[in-house]
Amino acid sequence: MPQSERLLLGPGPSNPYPEAVAALTRPVLGHLDPEFLALLDETMERLRTVFRTKNALTLPISGTGSAGMEACFVNLLEPGDTAIVGVNGVFGERMADVARRCGADVVRVEEAWGRALDPQRLIDAQREHPHARLLAVVHAETSTGVENDIAPLAAIGDTDTLLVVDTVTSLAGIPVEVDGWRVDACYAGTQKCLGVPPGLAPLTFGERAVDRLRNRLHPPQSWYLDLGLIGAYVGGSTRRYHHTAPIVMIYSLHAGLGAVLDEGLDAVWERHRQVGARLHRELPELGFRLAAEKGHQLPELTTAWLPEGADDAALRKTLLETYGIEVGGGLGEFAGKAWRIGLMGNSARDRSVTALLGALRELLA
Amino acid sequence: MPQSERLLLGPGPSNPYPEAVAALTRPVLGHLDPEFLALLDETMERLRTVFRTKNALTLPISGTGSAGMEACFVNLLEPGDTAIVGVNGVFGERMADVARRCGADVVRVEEAWGRALDPQRLIDAQREHPHARLLAVVHAETSTGVENDIAPLAAIGDTDTLLVVDTVTSLAGIPVEVDGWRVDACYAGTQKCLGVPPGLAPLTFGERAVDRLRNRLHPPQSWYLDLGLIGAYVGGSTRRYHHTAPIVMIYSLHAGLGAVLDEGLDAVWERHRQVGARLHRELPELGFRLAAEKGHQLPELTTAWLPEGADDAALRKTLLETYGIEVGGGLGEFAGKAWRIGLMGNSARDRSVTALLGALRELLA
Repeated sequence: MPQSERLLLGPGPSNPYPEAVAALTRPVLGHLDPEFLALLDETMERLRTVFRTKNALTLPISGTGSAGMEACFVNLLEPGDTAIVGVNGVFGERMADVARRCGADVVRVEEAWGRALDPQRLIDAQREHPHARLLAVVHAETSTGVENDIAPLAAIGDTDTLLVVDTVTSLAGIPVEVDGWRVDACYAGTQKCLGVPPGLAPLTFGERAVDRLRNRLHPPQSWYLDLGLIGAYVGGSTRRYHHTAPIVMIYSLHAGLGAVLDEGLDAVWERHRQVGARLHRELPELGFRLAAEKGHQLPELTTAWLPEGADDAALRKTLLETYGIEVGGGLGEFAGKAWRIGLMGNSARDRSVTALLGALRELLA
Repeated sequence: MPQSERLLLGPGPSNPYPEAVAALTRPVLGHLDPEFLALLDETMERLRTVFRTKNALTLPISGTGSAGMEACFVNLLEPGDTAIVGVNGVFGERMADVARRCGADVVRVEEAWGRALDPQRLIDAQREHPHARLLAVVHAETSTGVENDIAPLAAIGDTDTLLVVDTVTSLAGIPVEVDGWRVDACYAGTQKCLGVPPGLAPLTFGERAVDRLRNRLHPPQSWYLDLGLIGAYVGGSTRRYHHTAPIVMIYSLHAGLGAVLDEGLDAVWERHRQVGARLHRELPELGFRLAAEKGHQLPELTTAWLPEGADDAALRKTLLETYGIEVGGGLGEFAGKAWRIGLMGNSARDRSVTALLGALRELLA
């Protein structure tokens, strides 16, 4: 079975950093081996640096980004709780769905696809529902390429409502400030701006979230994602076995985080900013129109309406087969009409933009 | 950070097959790339061969073995359902815990640690609770080294109760016959006898289980493990996106399954049988006593009481640090008193037994 070399410019996975790939084949250790536990500790410390947090409970969940989302909700919600969810794309919808499956009453704060959520409306919703257990927002909506502002939501920290933020497509791509923004619970994925293959979901819980966890009336509905049990393995001195950790994926995350921190978070953010800005500038010259609201366009994930008359499926097929370049089709309302172009992690390079625009110029000529 | 070469003779992870390691660094593809979907299809076909089933819904769940367990229960149970669970070790307990978290009333059929469950007692329990939605048994109890007989439970197929079997530590180590034993739902892990690093949970659902899934009153409480949604990605023609697949782990599973099938299932079972039999024969010569009931001792996972006066922790530390050999400590009732010695996957070699016994002879002299 062939696995061709691809330039991965879709909504993820991105091309991983070479360090993250090389680490996959290091000798497998047991999940209770002191050498592995030392590496896990260092991985957690690196995650704290990238999340910009001092939270003790900061770890990789053994599943992809959506498992990180589910881990937040199943640990923080109990049946009958109220959850406020910002919905302006597929991943806000997914949060609402996951919260409902936890038995929560979901209060939706909606915005049109392609537009950013108004933080004031979210804050107002919390005032209307002061007993809401949490307020959840997607930082970088992968379906629309929109950045939702999180900083103004720090005010939620003055209430009894927890602030939950999805940073799957923002962590290590644009600034994320877990402590600075008073985020109580936050999760991400490895296969986007972190430049690591898919398979893990970095997650961090602050003190208020840990308190909530400790004071639950009932155990979380998920055993696999029960952070009380997982916390007894990753933290503390006893290292109580919960489930077998995905060893080689953690090696890869450790190495990918090393690459990010060696370059420096500021430099990584700047690289994503620059390549995104160039794409936003040059894509319209080919007849594309940017779909996300101005001022809220993510540099690492660009949504763009196709040029008049262009055939979505045929164009993407040729891009993939002839040029080895993957871009993403639109989801939901955007299906067939817009593309999602990712410049994330090790794919966030000037040469990626050159290759894509060059190919498109030939195809659309 | 070092990752030393280890001979992994604990309860998992085992040493992976070289093919499974090499595949990890193949170029990353997108989860909707036709080349990846072809590899996923072939992986599912290989899983069917190893599970000995024709079940269409046969796939790797994006989490470790315990995620496979949870996937079975959250998809097959609804609040208020009755679940019969065989409990004679940690993993039977875990099934009972997971079923309870799904809101089920759990009927426990217990047996002492180290002894096998009596199939007749399980069948009787189903007769007493004919409306039980499922009956769940661990085939190979990793905590005790006991094999529970599954074949006699085929009779459950004549009732409305589904038969769910945990083959985490048996699949590709000892015979597993999903169709032959009329198992309705079955899951495993990659890091045991399959000889692949930890991170995925192979799972298969038969027609009766799929019908149950289709006729649920409410969606499963887990979105991440919702087999209705996952099935629309792995099967059918639309390949509807659910979550980003853990690409490189699936490469590794595909290659590990290839290694197993190239050797041949019969030959792989025989290899596990022979090395296990040798260990069972020679370990008592060093003062160990086998802990599992005779006739139900797993060849791939041996539990043994330590020789009189031996220091569990100190011995395992020296084995690891001086000889590079990992064995597992006891869980639960066995903690501090018994070991768990795995001979699984690529670790199931005569030379593994020689190395372990040689080291123990030196240490216990």
